[in-house]
Formats: sequence, C-alpha cells, structure tokens
Amino acid sequence: MSTDSGNPSCLLYGPLDARFEDRPMPVLDNPHDVIVQVAYTGVCGSDVHFWLHGGIRTYVSETQPLTMGHEASGIIHKVGSGVITLVPGDRVAIEPGYPCRRCARCKIGRYNLCPEMKFAADPPYTHGTLTKYFKLPADFCYKIPDSISLSDAVLMEPLAVAIHAVRLADIKLGNRVIVFGAGTVGLFCAAVAREFGASVVVSVDVLENRLRFAREFIGSVGRTAMPDLSLSPEENAQRLIQTQGFGEGADIVIDASGAEASVQTGVFSLRMGGTYVQAGMGKRKIEFPISEMCEREIVAKGCFRYGAGDFDLGIHLVGSGRIQLAGLVTKIFPFGRATDAWETAKRGEGTKTLIEGPKT
Amino acid sequence: MSTDSGNPSCLLYGPLDARFEDRPMPVLDNPHDVIVQVAYTGVCGSDVHFWLHGGIRTYVSETQPLTMGHEASGIIHKVGSGVITLVPGDRVAIEPGYPCRRCARCKIGRYNLCPEMKFAADPPYTHGTLTKYFKLPADFCYKIPDSISLSDAVLMEPLAVAIHAVRLADIKLGNRVIVFGAGTVGLFCAAVAREFGASVVVSVDVLENRLRFAREFIGSVGRTAMPDLSLSPEENAQRLIQTQGFGEGADIVIDASGAEASVQTGVFSLRMGGTYVQAGMGKRKIEFPISEMCEREIVAKGCFRYGAGDFDLGIHLVGSGRIQLAGLVTKIFPFGRATDAWETAKRGEGTKTLIEGPKT
Amino acid sequence: MSTDSGNPSCLLYGPLDARFEDRPMPVLDNPHDVIVQVAYTGVCGSDVHFWLHGGIRTYVSETQPLTMGHEASGIIHKVGSGVITLVPGDRVAIEPGYPCRRCARCKIGRYNLCPEMKFAADPPYTHGTLTKYFKLPADFCYKIPDSISLSDAVLMEPLAVAIHAVRLADIKLGNRVIVFGAGTVGLFCAAVAREFGASVVVSVDVLENRLRFAREFIGSVGRTAMPDLSLSPEENAQRLIQTQGFGEGADIVIDASGAEASVQTGVFSLRMGGTYVQAGMGKRKIEFPISEMCEREIVAKGCFRYGAGDFDLGIHLVGSGRIQLAGLVTKIFPFGRATDAWETAKRGEGTKTLIEGPKT
Amino acid sequence: MSTDSGNPSCLLYGPLDARFEDRPMPVLDNPHDVIVQVAYTGVCGSDVHFWLHGGIRTYVSETQPLTMGHEASGIIHKVGSGVITLVPGDRVAIEPGYPCRRCARCKIGRYNLCPEMKFAADPPYTHGTLTKYFKLPADFCYKIPDSISLSDAVLMEPLAVAIHAVRLADIKLGNRVIVFGAGTVGLFCAAVAREFGASVVVSVDVLENRLRFAREFIGSVGRTAMPDLSLSPEENAQRLIQTQGFGEGADIVIDASGAEASVQTGVFSLRMGGTYVQAGMGKRKIEFPISEMCEREIVAKGCFRYGAGDFDLGIHLVGSGRIQLAGLVTKIFPFGRATDAWETAKRGEGTKTLIEGPKT
Repeated sequence: MSTDSGNPSCLLYGPLDARFEDRPMPVLDNPHDVIVQVAYTGVCGSDVHFWLHGGIRTYVSETQPLTMGHEASGIIHKVGSGVITLVPGDRVAIEPGYPCRRCARCKIGRYNLCPEMKFAADPPYTHGTLTKYFKLPADFCYKIPDSISLSDAVLMEPLAVAIHAVRLADIKLGNRVIVFGAGTVGLFCAAVAREFGASVVVSVDVLENRLRFAREFIGSVGRTAMPDLSLSPEENAQRLIQTQGFGEGADIVIDASGAEASVQTGVFSLRMGGTYVQAGMGKRKIEFPISEMCEREIVAKGCFRYGAGDFDLGIHLVGSGRIQLAGLVTKIFPFGRATDAWETAKRGEGTKTLIEGPKT
Repeated sequence: MSTDSGNPSCLLYGPLDARFEDRPMPVLDNPHDVIVQVAYTGVCGSDVHFWLHGGIRTYVSETQPLTMGHEASGIIHKVGSGVITLVPGDRVAIEPGYPCRRCARCKIGRYNLCPEMKFAADPPYTHGTLTKYFKLPADFCYKIPDSISLSDAVLMEPLAVAIHAVRLADIKLGNRVIVFGAGTVGLFCAAVAREFGASVVVSVDVLENRLRFAREFIGSVGRTAMPDLSLSPEENAQRLIQTQGFGEGADIVIDASGAEASVQTGVFSLRMGGTYVQAGMGKRKIEFPISEMCEREIVAKGCFRYGAGDFDLGIHLVGSGRIQLAGLVTKIFPFGRATDAWETAKRGEGTKTLIEGPKT
Repeated sequence: MSTDSGNPSCLLYGPLDARFEDRPMPVLDNPHDVIVQVAYTGVCGSDVHFWLHGGIRTYVSETQPLTMGHEASGIIHKVGSGVITLVPGDRVAIEPGYPCRRCARCKIGRYNLCPEMKFAADPPYTHGTLTKYFKLPADFCYKIPDSISLSDAVLMEPLAVAIHAVRLADIKLGNRVIVFGAGTVGLFCAAVAREFGASVVVSVDVLENRLRFAREFIGSVGRTAMPDLSLSPEENAQRLIQTQGFGEGADIVIDASGAEASVQTGVFSLRMGGTYVQAGMGKRKIEFPISEMCEREIVAKGCFRYGAGDFDLGIHLVGSGRIQLAGLVTKIFPFGRATDAWETAKRGEGTKTLIEGPKT
Repeated sequence: MSTDSGNPSCLLYGPLDARFEDRPMPVLDNPHDVIVQVAYTGVCGSDVHFWLHGGIRTYVSETQPLTMGHEASGIIHKVGSGVITLVPGDRVAIEPGYPCRRCARCKIGRYNLCPEMKFAADPPYTHGTLTKYFKLPADFCYKIPDSISLSDAVLMEPLAVAIHAVRLADIKLGNRVIVFGAGTVGLFCAAVAREFGASVVVSVDVLENRLRFAREFIGSVGRTAMPDLSLSPEENAQRLIQTQGFGEGADIVIDASGAEASVQTGVFSLRMGGTYVQAGMGKRKIEFPISEMCEREIVAKGCFRYGAGDFDLGIHLVGSGRIQLAGLVTKIFPFGRATDAWETAKRGEGTKTLIEGPKT
C-alpha cells in the first residue's frame, strides 16, 4: 500500500466480507478526465445495506468484488490534457456517477436517468471511492471554496439528493412543506425547501433526538412533529394539518424516510393539487392511497439521485453560508476501519459517519 | 307530472330505492344562469355504484334523497338577464359541476379542485340531471354544432374526462402511449392521445369484444393487447413493451380501469422519466411499486373530473369529425325505466347506456 | 360631503381638470360584495399620466368623468349576505380590478387578461378609489395583519405588480438577476427576486439617490449599477456583466423602467437561454435587438398587472417581515389636495406619495 | 480529386470566391465518431449570405477559408470502435453541429446553446459538408428509413428547425396558429403545427406562388393569407384575425420570415396571453410593439437551430408519411456547380436547391 503506482482500496466480496487490496492505478486515457486523491468517503444507508447483503438488486461476488463508497471529496492529483477548469491541488467534491452523454435522456437534460450511467460502487462493474486514486470526468468534480472543509465536502452528495428532490417538488415562495424523515437527506430537504422560499417547513420523525437537531438546523421557518404510531396515517395527517394550521393541507410533501406509514400520512397531508416527492427508499411495494391521489389531483414524483446543476447549487448554498453544516459529521474513521464505520451507521449512531481516504 | 311548473325527477332514497317525483321548478335568480330541458342523461360506473350502495363516501337517505344523473345534454329553456351567449332552443352539452369562482383553486385555474364545487348528483345537496328542468350557469352549457346529436352530446362528459387525463399526461407528438381499460373513458383517452400526436396508442383490456371495438375506434395508430392474468404485473409489462417494440418502455401510461393489476403493470411499463395518469377509480388503496417510481423518476398524477377548456376541446374534436362517436351509445331507456338502465350498465352490457329526459 | 349616504369623490373631467363631488353611495346588490371605507390611495405613474393627458388610449371627458385612484387600502364598512371571510372594521388592502370569472382567461387562471375586467379608474366606466366608499367583491379585499399600517397597505398593489413580474420570470434559487429601474416597482422586483432565491440582484438606475436607497432596501444580495449614457446598450451590457462577474450573462432581466435603452441593455445582458420580463411601460414601440433574442434563444415576456395569489404572497412577505417597507411612503396629502399629490409625483419627488381618503 | 485518401471539398475564401480543393481525409480518433460520405448538401439562405458577404458576424478569409454546407445527407463510410448503432452503408441525415456535452447548457438539455458548439460551415474553424468525407459523432447521424430518399433526407435539417420552433411555441391540440413566411422553414412550421394538433394554420406570405404551394402542402387545416402592404401592421393583423374568425386573436404566431412588418403584424395578431416565436432572421434590430407585448402578456421566444429529439421527430413524421416532401426539392446541381446552386437560391427560384456530393 505504499508506492505511487499503487492504489489501496476497500473492496466488498460478499455480505460482511470486505478486503483491503492494492488496485491498479487509474490511467488518464480520456483528455477530459482527472484523477482525484480521495480525502473522505461518507457512509450512507445504501452502504450499510451493501455491507449486510452484498448489494441491492445486483450483487458483488467472490469473482466480482467491488470497491465501495460514493459520497466523497478529495484533491486533484492529475488532469487530462483537455482539462482547463482544474489543476492538481484543487480541493473538490465528487459527483460519483457519470452518464454516457449521448443517449436520449442525457441529451434532454436528465442524465441521472441514463441507462449507461457509471455510478460509483454500483455492481457489477463500477468501482467506488474507497480507494486512494479515483478517476472521473473533470466536469463531475466541483471545486469547493476555502470555507468548506474536505470532510464537509462529502456532504455535497446528500445535499445534491435533497436539492434534486426540492427541485422536483417545485417549491415556490410561500409554500407550506412537510418533510418526513430527519436523517441527513431529510434535514437537507428541509433546509433547501427553506432556501427555495417555503414559509413553513415541518420536519417529521419518530426519534426525538433527530427532531431536536432538526429544530436547530432548519431555523426560523422550521417546525417539528412526531407521529402518533397508535393512529392511522389518515388520522396522523389530520392531526398534523390541524396542529400546523395548514387549512386544506400542505402544498408540498417530501418523504425522505421510505417508511410506508410516512408515504401514506404524506399523501393524506396534502391539499387539493399538492405535490408529493418520494426521495427515500424503503420497501419496493407499499400500500398506497390511490383514490386520495385521484380525488385531490395530487402529483407524485419519484426522485433518483441528482442531475444538472444540483452539486453547483449545493456548493453555492453552503459556500455562501445559507446552509450551515456544523454538527452533521459526527464521526470519522481511518481507512483501515471502514467496516467499523458501516457498523456505526448500522446502529443509527450520529448523523453522518465518514471514512478517511488511504494515507499511504 | 304535466304542468309547466312541475319538474318530474328521478330521486334515489337509498340502495335500490329510486322514486319518481315532481320537484319544484328551478328559479332563475342569478342573471348568468340558464334552465336546460334535459334531453338525455348517460349512465356511468358511479351511477351504478350509487344505485347499489346509495352513494360513495357520502350517502343519500330517506330524509335526504337526491336527483340522480350527471352526464347530460338538453335544450335551453330559459336564460337569465345577463346571458348573451345562449338563447332558448339552443342545443347544449352540460358540464355538470360548477365551482365557487372565488377560492384559491378557482382563481389559479383549477376549478375542478374547488372545495365548494356543486356537482350534479353529489350527496348530500346537489341534485342531478335526471329531471326535466336543470338549472346551471350559462358558461357551463356548451352549444353543440348540428353535426352532434343530443344523444351523442351526452358523451361530451366522459370525453372531457379523457381530455383532462391526456392534458395532465402532457402527451406530445411522437409519444408512445398505453391506455389500460377500453370502456368509454379508456376509449376516449386513446382517441384523444392519438389527436395529441401519439405515434402509437395501445389499448389494454381483459375483454376481447372491447378490444375489437377499440381497434376500429382508435384507428391507424391504435393497437390492442390483453394481459395474461397468469403472469405478474412486472411480467405483463415486459411482454407488453417487447411486443410493441417500445424499447425502454412507454412514454405515457393512462389507467382508465382502476384495477390494481393495471396500475402495477402500468408503472412497470414506463420508460425512465415516463408519466403515469390515474384516470379510473377502483379500490381506495392498492399495492404500489414505489421503488420503481423512484428509480425511474416516474411522475404519477391523479386526475379528477375536468376543467377549463376540456368540454370546448371535446366538442371541437367531435364537431370537426376528428373523433367519431358511432357505436358508442348502445341503448336508450325512457325516463320511467331509469333503473333498468342502471341494471344494464351493471351487467356490463354495451358501451354507453342513456336515459331519455322526461317528456311530460 | 357630510351625510352617511354621501360619497365624496375626486373625479377627473379632462387634463388638469379634477373636481370634488358627492357621488352616490354604492349599493350592495351582490351578496359576495363588500363596501370599503377608503383609508389611503397611492399615486402611480399612470395617475400622473391621466392627470396630464386625461387618460391612456381611452380618455375621460366632460360628459364622462371618472373617479381616480387604484392603489388603495381601507376599512370594511359593510359586507354582503354571502360574505363569511370579512366583517365591518377589518383592515384591508384592495386589489382594484375584478374580472368576469366566466371567460376562458378567467377559468384558465389568468384573470388579469379578462377582456371584461373592471379596473379602478379605467376609462370610460370604472370608477376608482379616490372616494369615501368603494364597492368590490370580498375576495379582492385582503385582510392585513396588525404589523402592516393602512398607509403601508397601499404598497401591496405595486408589490403585487412586482410579484407577478418575478413569477413570470420564474426566478429560481441561485439565479443572477438584473432589475432596470429603482422606483417603487423596480425596488419591489429586486426584493421579491431576493426572496425567490436570487443569489445576486443588481438594481440599475440613472439616479444616484435611488441607487442609494436600493442598496439599503435590497440587502445582502443586492448590488447597484448606473449605466454610462455615452455608451451603447451593447457596451453597457458588457460592462455590467463584467463588473458583476456574471460570466456568460444574467439568468434573468426584469425591466421596470420602460426606457428604450434599458430594454436594449437588458436583452444584451442575458445569458444564452435567459428570461426577460417587461414590467414597466414607456413608448409603445421601441427598437428591439431581435437577432440577439434568436441567437441566444431568449424568452421575453410581457407583464400586465397581477393575478391569482399575488396580493396574498405580498401580504405574507411584508407581514412576516421578509420585506420591510420603511421609507417607501414619502409624503401623504389630505384628500382635498389630491392634485398636489399628482404634481409631487410628476416632479419625481420621493418614492411613494399617498392621498388620504375623505374623512367626512 | 480521385484517390481514396483525398477529400474533394468546396471552400469559400471570400465573397464570391469559392474554390474546389482536396482537403485531408478525416481521421477517426474518437471511438464514438463516424465518417459519412456526403450524398447531398442543401442550400439555405445563410449559404447565400455567406456566398455574397463571406460570412455573418464572423468571416472567412484568404488565410482562413472554410468548407461550405450544413444541410446534408450521406452514407456511413467508417465507424469508430465504440459505435454500435451504425454500420458502413447506412443511409443517414446529418445534424451538422455538435456540442461539448460538458457545459451547463449541454447538461441541462439545451445543447443548441452550447458556447463551444462546432457547427458546420461556421467561421472561422468548423468546416462544412460540401466535401466528400465528413466526420461527426455517431449520435448526430440519423438512420433514415427506405421511404426517405437521400435527396429528401437533406430536408431533415430545415424540418428540425421547424420542429424546434413549434416545440418552443408549445402548440396544443386545438390551437389557432399563424405562420409568417412560406419558404422551406415556414412550410415545415405550418405542417408541424398541424401535426401538433393545430385546428387552423394560416400561412402568410407576399408571393402568390408560395401560397399556392402552401395550400397543397399544409392540407385540410391550412389556410393562406397575403398581407396588404398598403396597410399598417396593426391593420393587417386586424384584417387577418377577422378574415379567419379568430375572435380575440391567434393562440400562436411563428415568424419564419424575419421581415420587420411580419414581426409587428404577428405580435398584433395574438390573443391575450398568446405565444410568439421568432424562427426566421432578418435585420438585427427592428421596431417592436412592446406595449402590446405587455398589455396582452405575450410571451416572445427566440429560436436557435434545433436540439434534443428534433431530428428524430422529423424522421418519424416523414418516415410515417405524416409529412410529405414531394415537390420541395426543386433543383439538384452537381458538386462542381455549387456556385450556380447559390446563385439559383439567391434569385429565389424554387423551394429547395441541392448540391450533390463529390462523386470521385
């Protein structure tokens, strides 16, 4: 793990089977690519799912292991001959998936739906960021201002998820918004909704410590609510609307929890013609109040990763101080203890756990 | 039932309890209202549900019976002093619900979501069109050209439902569309999708005779498919996409059936970023493939009745011959046999059953 | 001018010919109307134009004089039998034009384009607010919170103009915006753009004292610029873009000046695909850089008055303290000195001049 | 001009100075590129302008001559190693400009606004299609069905211009449309408007022979009108609206003429809230009725070339027989007589003039 040409990496071979190996140093064969020396990789719920199950829908295997990690920051190590926007030494946030740029989805401006997307740590082929040197196109690296640390820069990825969700929700000045789930993405959805002009943002979660953090994090337009698990989704929705004085219902609901009860409560909480965005993933199928969607002419939107401009806007919001990140990164593990990071996240400890990039 | 001041009507008092009565003649107290002498009232699925159950969510009762009927045509009988667009004798299609015009939904142009909507035959208060004289605002009566008969004019209502659904679906020239359900609304959705420029419209139903009619009705861009009920929704979707050569999937799916299996098959049939519109109503809650909606960033829209311009466009489409109505009205009952009309519709006989307005 | 049934009013009979008269007390013949006792009426540029020329396109005359005034606030005096949202004594801002509610434009949600609009002080028929008692529909009166004074409530009208313009501009979080003109509407456009999430708002004017006020008013995202009248519009645009570091150009330009040079500079200041909104009116025809509009695929939008939700949002923004009104109302004249108010505005003194409603 | 490695081309060195030369054979250095053997190149108005003036805004020179031509079809000669959608021998229409794919405009789905666009025959650097072998990315070549000849395939370029314009106009089923100019692009705009569902399309031109062709070409929804040059634009607009029975005015106006009088007449012809699209280019600045744009809240859009999906849709429309091309190509010149082709187009003879690709 010590020569310059070596590329120490953490690969998953199967459930609970992670191995540290020296992978080949990436080669700059495309003039628009760069190589980043990874500083930090964040742990997200999907990493924990991979760690426990070896994949989601597609799986790693003994013969096809995969370098883990997709939320990452780093320092530019080398740039291709055609790169004019970055130089070695630049500090960057990484957008960890890059599309083909040639298909119908890419050309129409929705590259997150590209069927040939190469997304970090996505089985079976695309290796992730738990590695020393990570190669990607220059335009998927975003220079961060001095005011953002390399550890906080990891948060640009979940922030981009939230920005994408709020953009799909098309939140307008004065809207009343409910966000289900107060984990990293849920918190960011609430803060981004505020920045898009929401007059009230209610953060809903079942854990009081998360709501306590949310109250601080969202600021003046923020409120919090805990559902009463003994009530039906319809009753919880009624309670929520009445408590918040939302009259006919919320203009916008974003679910960042993926929980079936949240989805149902969310739909019942909307006003006539309101918009629902599904930003979190849980069970593949759930019981859905479809008559409610019809009779109120609700628009429900699926939300997948992020697209054009999402990272840029996130860096603007954090760099300009509109969104403060203090307190979100709760623990940082050295590279060799990556599995401990996953176990920590699995136990639900803290908000965001990071793994340092390999130092040697 | 014979004087000019009398208003013979068919009221529902409870499940399977319809009574013919003389109701008060409506009074023109608003200068913008008109009184229509009803020519025909159509039977829709909701009428049958009312006939069997006495209502949907809200119910008629012995002390609060309700005049039935909401799909209707007629002849202008009297006009208010402020009405300049209609004169007695004009033949009209009726839009059977009128909003408050003052609330936020009305002003923003979505009057179908008005919480104070007065919709014909909607319990507990708003009487319907199974009556001799029906009063409504002049701007909810649409003059029909000579080329449309009064019996066909009844079909402007389900056609408006279809136009509203296709507008929500935002079908564009060249789109590939699947419509589930080949009843009146489903057939109209398919024909309207064609007029909006769909390059292919697949009509899906479980009844071969409906598909046979659909093939004629939709014309050159139309195709038909019958699901294999022994397969899963995901498998039926795959089969559908492959048979039609839809590559990644359909651009647009409209469900006009309300059947759970259709909803599921529909979502699985869409391409990345496709749009799903729920135009038919069935069970209040269904099992919904929400992960699919997320991962493909699908937009799902509820669809409720119709709104601004929907009747106008329908009359244009039929009046100009773009949509042909021949064969849709399959049976017409005299007023006194309204219950037989509902029983006929209940048995699924024919496409559209009408009831003539009271003649005396 | 002293009995309760009297209605002292200020009418224009021709250029520079205003007369104070007792007009008939309005009668509540529609159950949804209310009568407001006018507290204040603001003076806008169009009032000055009327005062000098007797009208714009249509004109008052000796036989058809018109009560002036359209920016107004007041106290509810009487309410119709169907009004449940207001009671006598309520303090309200007035939206001074009400549409037919029945035409295609009204139903589609764009009532400001209603061809039958009754707009206050619009020749030849619709009388304005320089009167003691003014009748209008209840839903065009907006209750103001205690934090907004009746004199500041007059500003809800120009604020609604600005909100309508910014909504048409579809300003999104992070957009870079230029507003030409720093009068009342221009200042409000800048502040509303900030609330819609603009990252930078540049206020452009030719008067240094206006720019000085703008710097305070717009706050942290605000900047100001004065064009160099010796340069061409294209050169001023280049200078503006470079000074502000706007790279390819501004995302959004709003012209609230109506000046030909501003329109031209504005179009040249936009980036590829940018949006231009014309909120101010000057000459009826101007020289327009249409090739620039093509080659950059610019969208240019006309902006006319205000529509659904614009007053509501304005009251929310001011009531919640997001927009501060201090310093905007610079002078208040008693009713009998209305012509002095117009003369003051004509001389360009101060920002907003008001006329008190008649006290007796 | 005879070896396989040679690449006979027609270059412009200055006004009226075209020379035939052997240029280097293009090299396939990008795996996603292809080399097309050009079959035909069409002559458009900008070619004539180049021929007469040596350029538009930027100019060719003795030291920097440029291969002319951008409307083209051909046969795939070689494909890069990564190309899986095309093989040598495939017949294709060429989209003659390709973007960087990495900038903000490209990623957002508006690649026609890419500042690094390489557009054929665009000075100073990008050579055009009047050459034997032309290299471009595979995804900018569109396979044509057997039903489209290689000479008609050239028309896919002006058809894409029209599709782009109509998409910007957002024409909906039932819209009433006026298209100014009945040249190739204007004719296509009218036909595409029809396919998007326009209920009436009025083609306006000053030449009777063009209108005669338009009547055939547009079909049943088509009408034609000739402006009276002795009337003002406002008067011509009034006459047009009344003659066509357009009531308040047209829903959509597309100007494909670039003539100042057409632009003005077009704006005056629109209804409240109508949309105007500028698809043709003439003088850089014109007198524009901006008050009209404001008071009717008109949206005016610039239109530049074409973007994602425009060629695909054009090929679908022609390939499926919805748009018939018979009669549009009026003359074909051999390669060596390219200058005669430009002179023919300059004299306004026929509709579309082609130049055959070099045969040896």
